[in-house]
Amino acid sequence: MNEAGKSTRPKPAHRLINSIRHGETIVNRIESLAALSDEPGKLTRLYLGPAHRLAAKQVEAWMHAAGMTVRLDSVGTVVGRYEGETPDLPTLLLGSHIDTIRNAGRFDGTLGVLTAIAVVEKLHSEGQRLPFAIEVVAFGDEEGVRYPGTLTGSRALAGRFDPKVLDEIDRDGISRREALMAFGCDVSQIAAEAREQDRILGYLEVHIEQGPVLENENLPIAVVTAISGATRGTVTVTGVGGHAGTVPMPLRRDALVAAAEMVLAVERTATNTSDLVATVGTFDIPDSAVNAVPGVAVFSFDVRSPSDATRKHALSMLQNEFEGIARRRCVELTIALSYDAPAAVCDTRLTAALSAAIARSGHQLRHLPSGAGHDAMAFKDKFPFAMLFVRCRGGISHDPAEFAALDDIDIAANVLADCIQRFDPTQSVD
Amino acid sequence: MNEAGKSTRPKPAHRLINSIRHGETIVNRIESLAALSDEPGKLTRLYLGPAHRLAAKQVEAWMHAAGMTVRLDSVGTVVGRYEGETPDLPTLLLGSHIDTIRNAGRFDGTLGVLTAIAVVEKLHSEGQRLPFAIEVVAFGDEEGVRYPGTLTGSRALAGRFDPKVLDEIDRDGISRREALMAFGCDVSQIAAEAREQDRILGYLEVHIEQGPVLENENLPIAVVTAISGATRGTVTVTGVGGHAGTVPMPLRRDALVAAAEMVLAVERTATNTSDLVATVGTFDIPDSAVNAVPGVAVFSFDVRSPSDATRKHALSMLQNEFEGIARRRCVELTIALSYDAPAAVCDTRLTAALSAAIARSGHQLRHLPSGAGHDAMAFKDKFPFAMLFVRCRGGISHDPAEFAALDDIDIAANVLADCIQRFDPTQSVD
Repeated sequence: MNEAGKSTRPKPAHRLINSIRHGETIVNRIESLAALSDEPGKLTRLYLGPAHRLAAKQVEAWMHAAGMTVRLDSVGTVVGRYEGETPDLPTLLLGSHIDTIRNAGRFDGTLGVLTAIAVVEKLHSEGQRLPFAIEVVAFGDEEGVRYPGTLTGSRALAGRFDPKVLDEIDRDGISRREALMAFGCDVSQIAAEAREQDRILGYLEVHIEQGPVLENENLPIAVVTAISGATRGTVTVTGVGGHAGTVPMPLRRDALVAAAEMVLAVERTATNTSDLVATVGTFDIPDSAVNAVPGVAVFSFDVRSPSDATRKHALSMLQNEFEGIARRRCVELTIALSYDAPAAVCDTRLTAALSAAIARSGHQLRHLPSGAGHDAMAFKDKFPFAMLFVRCRGGISHDPAEFAALDDIDIAANVLADCIQRFDPTQSVD
Repeated sequence: MNEAGKSTRPKPAHRLINSIRHGETIVNRIESLAALSDEPGKLTRLYLGPAHRLAAKQVEAWMHAAGMTVRLDSVGTVVGRYEGETPDLPTLLLGSHIDTIRNAGRFDGTLGVLTAIAVVEKLHSEGQRLPFAIEVVAFGDEEGVRYPGTLTGSRALAGRFDPKVLDEIDRDGISRREALMAFGCDVSQIAAEAREQDRILGYLEVHIEQGPVLENENLPIAVVTAISGATRGTVTVTGVGGHAGTVPMPLRRDALVAAAEMVLAVERTATNTSDLVATVGTFDIPDSAVNAVPGVAVFSFDVRSPSDATRKHALSMLQNEFEGIARRRCVELTIALSYDAPAAVCDTRLTAALSAAIARSGHQLRHLPSGAGHDAMAFKDKFPFAMLFVRCRGGISHDPAEFAALDDIDIAANVLADCIQRFDPTQSVD
């Protein structure tokens, strides 16, 4: 798995903290956090819930032990600061999130937070200060499970917090405002969380890939090119229902068969387009019966690409395909978009810095888009950001079976540490 | 609509009862029965329920008025007998059913019962006796809604009643035995309902088409060739689920896309085969999500043909198609059959008698298979049977919008009357 032996590994310029094994500490702490759940027997740690409170306290303790000054910000992000060579230097942000979906895996989010803490802890234990400050952020609202709005931790830092979301209600009727106050947050201070652009050098996040590419190519890590833009929508096909025994084939206007053709068009369009994935995730025939010709079929589509132009072109091709199929089959078609977000392209210089560290580690350099969303999206056009992906078993995520190997985590932690130690803050501010 | 004017209509040999308008009486009575429902605001008349009891009483009264002796048989069929020229002659059965699905149309079943009564009523009013007896049967268990087993009225006449169905339970926990007893039926007498083959000349049923062919061809009636055989089953396609954003197209084993290809194979196979319809009526992705690649897809299929050989050949082709698609896409496939019934071919001589009556009426002779099931299926290889279809608006059935025009009903009633009046019992017993 580790191909380091095959290459010449250049000596790092700084002290050899990247030769120290971080993985074990990180994995032990991932296991500790996995025990903090709102639901017995599975991992569910929702934003501002009781398990989130415990996890935030635990993360705070680890940050303290790593030499950081720690505060809970006004939207529930745990922020640990490790000063640089002098106080009050511009800041490099590291981190990820500590909230989870319901019945989650253990690595999604926590890996990035704990890798960042482990790297700072090593700097601290070696008494090393860098020519910039580091802040490790443990966001609490990445999964968007409890409230409709999401990424509020990173949005607040980017000055993009929308106060309207304070009135959002969870399924128990508790507003986000009430939940924040109960968590100990001063909601009057949220606007003040916004960071000045020239004080933030960038944001680096380590995350499991949540996909199968690295495993398939037998690589431990990859550098992320962009968080893909995504468009989602619902297609409703309306034909004419009928009796499965009495309507001859030429007289049918079967909504399901038309929709099935559209599903194949989605797959064909994506397969024929580089850097694009497209998925029909839900497919339903309302009031269906085994002995009835379907009159209505409803399906979702989800189209993602690191290139907005590619995504838009594919959507336009898909719309043409759908309309052609509907015309030919004499069925009606409505397309309703439900979500549309542009790609968030990773910063060239930060990505180059991660890539150089990977090269120095002796591992093959692989670039991957992130098909899933991350907090870094909130920093688009505000702060530079980059991400490092870690192989996960079977590409499985958002599932209790989620797993990343200690060896791979170790490689990612060492690459992150090496990247940070060599990071030149004078080259990184636009 | 009525094309009689275009043709020369030969004079009937008997008295001119077929020039008398039956449609109005029939339609008025269909409306009366439509008011007898177990559910307010819609027509629901389940086997042996309170509305069925009222409908049976009403039918009994109309039968009496039409000169018939009436009894309720031991499975809830109302049987009205109109003797022939001498008592105890062999019997021609006419009829259909008076139970309905939930939220039913008004014409399905009742049309056949009330057309038969109207025809007998005219014979009676003219004092006409035929060289055979007529029995009008109003079956009560054709739709198979209340209990799993169905067609018990016709099965009992055919000596094919399975006593096991007496233990079937409806959704309120009432057994079929209890319901029959509460309806006034003596279940110990069911076996005695079986008719001797040489005492039954045949069975004729008028029914709405329940399909769009006659409307599409602007014809009022058709003679049925066969009640199609049908095979139904469920296909489960198992691929590999995944994240819609993170699994590249070449690494997917998407169960939905594979199933969509199979749906198109079903349509293609049916379109390329004469005298066959094939339908995917239900299609489901368990635990689906807009942002997930489907790992499992489940769909039903329903294949029907008046020719058993055609149906079997198509099923074999479909299985090959499904297996080829599954192999190519590396997904698993299971096919479970849930229903398999052979075609019930209509009797040549009875069909010829109906066809001759249609020809005499001046209407174009159209033959159609019945894609839907009917009580006549229970008579397969036991009693000869034939059916007459009446155009219904939009091909709609099993829906409150079900409608057949008075003019078309009148044509069907006159054709049935003419057919019966000319019917030669000496040619009809095998």
